[in-house]
Amino acid sequence: MMQDLPLSDAYQFIEPGPVVLLTTQMPGRKPNVMAMSWHMVLGFEPALIGCVVARANHSYAALLTQGEAVIAVPPAGLARIVTGVGNCTGDDTDKFGNFDLTPLPAARVAAPLIGEAIVNLECRLRDRTMVKAYDMFVLQCVKGWVNPALREAPMLHHHGYGAFSVDGERVTLKSRMK
Amino acid sequence: MMQDLPLSDAYQFIEPGPVVLLTTQMPGRKPNVMAMSWHMVLGFEPALIGCVVARANHSYAALLTQGEAVIAVPPAGLARIVTGVGNCTGDDTDKFGNFDLTPLPAARVAAPLIGEAIVNLECRLRDRTMVKAYDMFVLQCVKGWVNPALREAPMLHHHGYGAFSVDGERVTLKSRMK
Repeated sequence: MMQDLPLSDAYQFIEPGPVVLLTTQMPGRKPNVMAMSWHMVLGFEPALIGCVVARANHSYAALLTQGEAVIAVPPAGLARIVTGVGNCTGDDTDKFGNFDLTPLPAARVAAPLIGEAIVNLECRLRDRTMVKAYDMFVLQCVKGWVNPALREAPMLHHHGYGAFSVDGERVTLKSRMK
Repeated sequence: MMQDLPLSDAYQFIEPGPVVLLTTQMPGRKPNVMAMSWHMVLGFEPALIGCVVARANHSYAALLTQGEAVIAVPPAGLARIVTGVGNCTGDDTDKFGNFDLTPLPAARVAAPLIGEAIVNLECRLRDRTMVKAYDMFVLQCVKGWVNPALREAPMLHHHGYGAFSVDGERVTLKSRMK
């Protein structure tokens, strides 16, 4: 179902600013997943992503100690699940089980892919310089997966307080970028 | 036309990941504007935004030396202008004049607001720790403006190579966030 995504294309799924799901895996524990909207592309090659995982999040310790995570981009059809994931904590909830998300084994990190996602990006923590000041992590994508059937699926964009935009029309305008 | 936007609401316009326009002003020069999709929210209060302005951009020197910029969120109706702005350089182009964008005086920075935008965020450079490694700037919003007539206007999201999504439906789901 998930096919190889060239790492140089990873930015095309993060640059539009979707709500994403971040999975982590602590040894001997169930995998965890959080919803995240504070992220940005930081580089094409290597494919770098900056993101905020606040220290209040259950995922913070896993990301900091394991140094690995998967960023999954959910299609808009998962809106209720995404909101549910974002409104409870892995401290006391098995979120994959609770929300019927399918964990799939990743190739290069311990954190799982999400079977229902458009794209899964396996990431390693590359730079923790900004963690102290902003809870901001710089991740490097080390392996990408795309579900071809969902490649152009609408994404969700969060406006705060549970308000989302769903992608509508796609337009392509002339660009000089090669 | 532009009304006060509380700084604590600024994130609601950046978190959804729109293509934005960044204006800068070098003393004695015409104001400049660039298109930008590599940005993220870094904090609610103070309202902090991280963004990449690559050193190849004409705006890089202005942002670094003046320490000020305005982030303007254009409505999707400006797609052609946004693409035009993103495909030429302020080195040799008066972009405000060329693309019929209306520069309006800001309250707290020298860079201009954009009259056609949904929101304008006056920003000061707060942290340049990540400039060397990633051309990434941390900006603090010091004054916000919103055009009430455009408050819910669809935004643009960039997928690379001139391909954009336009916001469609808005949905609101129950959130525990207050």
